[in-house]
Amino acid sequence: MHEERHLKNSDFITDIVIGMSDGLTVPFALAAGLSGAVSSNAIIITAGIAEIVAGCIAMGLGGYLAGKTEQEHYESELRREYEEVDIVPEKERQEVKDVFATYGLDEAAQNLIADQLCNDKHKWVDFMMKFEIGLEKPDSNRAVKSAFTIGISYCLGGLIPLSAYFYTSHPHDGLLVSAVLTTICLFIFGYFKSKVTGQPPVTGALKVTLIGVLAATAAFGVAKLLG
Amino acid sequence: MHEERHLKNSDFITDIVIGMSDGLTVPFALAAGLSGAVSSNAIIITAGIAEIVAGCIAMGLGGYLAGKTEQEHYESELRREYEEVDIVPEKERQEVKDVFATYGLDEAAQNLIADQLCNDKHKWVDFMMKFEIGLEKPDSNRAVKSAFTIGISYCLGGLIPLSAYFYTSHPHDGLLVSAVLTTICLFIFGYFKSKVTGQPPVTGALKVTLIGVLAATAAFGVAKLLG
Repeated sequence: MHEERHLKNSDFITDIVIGMSDGLTVPFALAAGLSGAVSSNAIIITAGIAEIVAGCIAMGLGGYLAGKTEQEHYESELRREYEEVDIVPEKERQEVKDVFATYGLDEAAQNLIADQLCNDKHKWVDFMMKFEIGLEKPDSNRAVKSAFTIGISYCLGGLIPLSAYFYTSHPHDGLLVSAVLTTICLFIFGYFKSKVTGQPPVTGALKVTLIGVLAATAAFGVAKLLG
Repeated sequence: MHEERHLKNSDFITDIVIGMSDGLTVPFALAAGLSGAVSSNAIIITAGIAEIVAGCIAMGLGGYLAGKTEQEHYESELRREYEEVDIVPEKERQEVKDVFATYGLDEAAQNLIADQLCNDKHKWVDFMMKFEIGLEKPDSNRAVKSAFTIGISYCLGGLIPLSAYFYTSHPHDGLLVSAVLTTICLFIFGYFKSKVTGQPPVTGALKVTLIGVLAATAAFGVAKLLG
């Protein structure tokens, strides 16, 4: 029970982390890149918002499809296991025994387990799904929740670096404010992300910040060369 | 053996799919958005390349960190299980029995399994890792491989929609060529992605294409309003 709750929280947090970390990083780097190449905040804001809209849809719908695919994959494997248990029960019974053979259990123990497990077809299939194929039953609302959580996190994350270009009048000022603001946010975000995923928080925060700064620096450099 | 090979392939393919689907979609949509707002291909190319560089680093390094985190998480849980087996063996033995109780095995069978499994500490811990906590030993090279695979797939994917702006001279022409080219590529990519993940290929291809077209249309609309 404790484990399950732990996993469900993780899914939600994982989605926020996926959306927010890319949202903070990519629009930040794009705006930084354009700051090195254009002389008007308006173009940066237009490009930034186009990117946020695109990223939000791509990641949100991407999350939805990934969730749906996971669910369909589970269901198709489940159907196959039920069929196999009906058509080739001896083979499936042997597979149960094989699972325990790899853990060093003797033939007598393997047979005892197989006899009892194969009494109940549903439990037998459940066992094969989890222990042979390694699939857990996915949360059926996961796909929709994923889509919204990732999409909204990406938008919120992306508006932070871009906001700097709203209240400054030149890309150089915008970049300066955006860089300071986003670096602070990346650090705070990285800190909480690491806390939640059980990593050392300061190291984790530094890693997240480094990725963002590297991406922005590279984008700035490349755009400067081209612009 | 078969299952393991299947899973390792999946990791690699999953990484390509992650990188390529976002790479085809987001730079395509960004360029489409800017096509509605600016009158020069040069700005679109600069923004597009800045975005590809940023996305490539963010996703590549993001993939690296995700892989590292997975590995560290596995190792810390492994250490904890070894400690628990040493400190509270009776509790861990009961947990082995509990796993089988949920599958309807009787007390005698539970005891027999627990006795044999707990003879070998390593197999006991292996069993707890997989069946109680639900963690598989991650591939130790996964983090670095993920980083490269995702990053390179993103770059390659992103250059396709952007290439249209290289050999046209006005954003409207660029957008037209880019839309036709990218829609075809999204469909082909979606088709193979679905084949590989065992989904109905044509439906899957249409879904992937739809996400890209939706993202590009939304980005174009929003940028047109702002530009």
